[in-house]
Amino acid sequence: MAFVNEDNLTELATTRWATAKSPRLAEVMTALVRHVHAFAREVNLTEEEWQAAMDWLAATGRISDEKRHEFILASDVVGLSTLVVQLNNQFSASATPATVLGPFHIDGSPALSYGEDMSDGLPGTPLFITGRVTDLDGNPVPNALLDIWQADSDGYYEAQLSEIDEARLRSKYRTREDGTYCVRTIAPLGYSIPLDGPVGDLIGKTEISPFRPAHIHFLIDQPGYRKLITHLFQEGTDYLESDVVFGVKDALIVRFETKQPGTAPDGSQIDTPHLHATYDFVLEPTCDAATR
Amino acid sequence: MAFVNEDNLTELATTRWATAKSPRLAEVMTALVRHVHAFAREVNLTEEEWQAAMDWLAATGRISDEKRHEFILASDVVGLSTLVVQLNNQFSASATPATVLGPFHIDGSPALSYGEDMSDGLPGTPLFITGRVTDLDGNPVPNALLDIWQADSDGYYEAQLSEIDEARLRSKYRTREDGTYCVRTIAPLGYSIPLDGPVGDLIGKTEISPFRPAHIHFLIDQPGYRKLITHLFQEGTDYLESDVVFGVKDALIVRFETKQPGTAPDGSQIDTPHLHATYDFVLEPTCDAATR
Repeated sequence: MAFVNEDNLTELATTRWATAKSPRLAEVMTALVRHVHAFAREVNLTEEEWQAAMDWLAATGRISDEKRHEFILASDVVGLSTLVVQLNNQFSASATPATVLGPFHIDGSPALSYGEDMSDGLPGTPLFITGRVTDLDGNPVPNALLDIWQADSDGYYEAQLSEIDEARLRSKYRTREDGTYCVRTIAPLGYSIPLDGPVGDLIGKTEISPFRPAHIHFLIDQPGYRKLITHLFQEGTDYLESDVVFGVKDALIVRFETKQPGTAPDGSQIDTPHLHATYDFVLEPTCDAATR
Repeated sequence: MAFVNEDNLTELATTRWATAKSPRLAEVMTALVRHVHAFAREVNLTEEEWQAAMDWLAATGRISDEKRHEFILASDVVGLSTLVVQLNNQFSASATPATVLGPFHIDGSPALSYGEDMSDGLPGTPLFITGRVTDLDGNPVPNALLDIWQADSDGYYEAQLSEIDEARLRSKYRTREDGTYCVRTIAPLGYSIPLDGPVGDLIGKTEISPFRPAHIHFLIDQPGYRKLITHLFQEGTDYLESDVVFGVKDALIVRFETKQPGTAPDGSQIDTPHLHATYDFVLEPTCDAATR
């Protein structure tokens, strides 16, 4: 057999990884090897740059833990996370589009009833979000579960606050029989991704804006429909056009209307100015459901 | 501006990373983004596969420390390390070729004199390596420093043995005025890369042999010459054709001749059978030196 040289190395490496016992793993690994080699050849990667990359990867691993997902952040800022969402969620034009999950979702949020306040007394401008969950034809989806999480009015998520040991600004709501829901919370703030790690080091060497525009996360996983992971963004807020994780889509930008004290969207009385956003989530049926 | 969709995402991401303040970082990062996106698009990466990749990266970081370099091991087994060596060490045909540094080099090895034993009483078959260090024309390079390290007769390096706190099977020798050197050590054994981490998990899902053939590492960093990082491999040993890190080159395979008790290559008497390898290292001049 031929020993290694610059010409045969990529072929030797792909041939070897093609022995993966799962055909899909063989496909993924051989493509990965080809693209990694093509990248190194294209830029003529130096030994110093290779060493810097190895050090960066190790540092990114060292800073990661159960709550901090620095590799997901890296995937986010190079657009890989959004690309994977796009590739896997090609919904009908009338369905609500998906966007990135992000690193801050926590399982097991508490259930709240229609109009109940998920902000639990935290400071901020009261915000009501109301609307319906429907199928592609506008029929209501009753009893659909909306799993919702957001940053506080300082731009921090529960996962970033180590001293917190109960659910904070995350809750689950269900739609009523007519598909309607009503969330009460506080207005979120745009925020910078964490810059004190290896991803921040890299961003700091560029002119890239590290901010995300103000948004609230929704996860709707309803039997018969494709799982929808998405955000609603506040219309007119900063950073919509420079979202560092490439998450913004036109169809997800919603007006937060300022309302005076009086009757709130859930019918209760409120004695402060507040915001009101309305949005109808339109779910894509699963393939099974579509052919039934 | 256009918000993100599948068609414009790669262009948006490369445009953004092109703002890196160093032109070289801009070149490397935009190429990286393009290749990462091309890979994900080509294999139509699923969300589950992306999550598995994120978990694998985090686990690879978790197992890495000062002594264990799991990302370098990953780079080794996909052929990236060897490719980077090839790209950066394009020497004359008559020069000794370079191969991978590997994860086991330790700085500051002790200096030994001509023929002194670097095995320090460890069990194994005595091995003498003799030869010259020369320039491309065969002229001797006197006082050249040979930094040498190897696995023991169980296949383990010092860096893998946590209980070791002094130099073990690693030493520095210098050539004499006529360019000759003489190393005394024990025969190394081929070995498996560590399989108890994320790289081993991946290798275990393939038919890839995890072994490296028996070899000894050399680093010769002599003023006026290109730094030479290389191995000598034992002729006829197992795994030469399947070296898991793609390190073997024809010109680096050397016969380890069996010798009977008697006069050893350094002129001393030896009362056991032993091995003798001869190899002349030929150094490539630096560009500066070549044009002087």
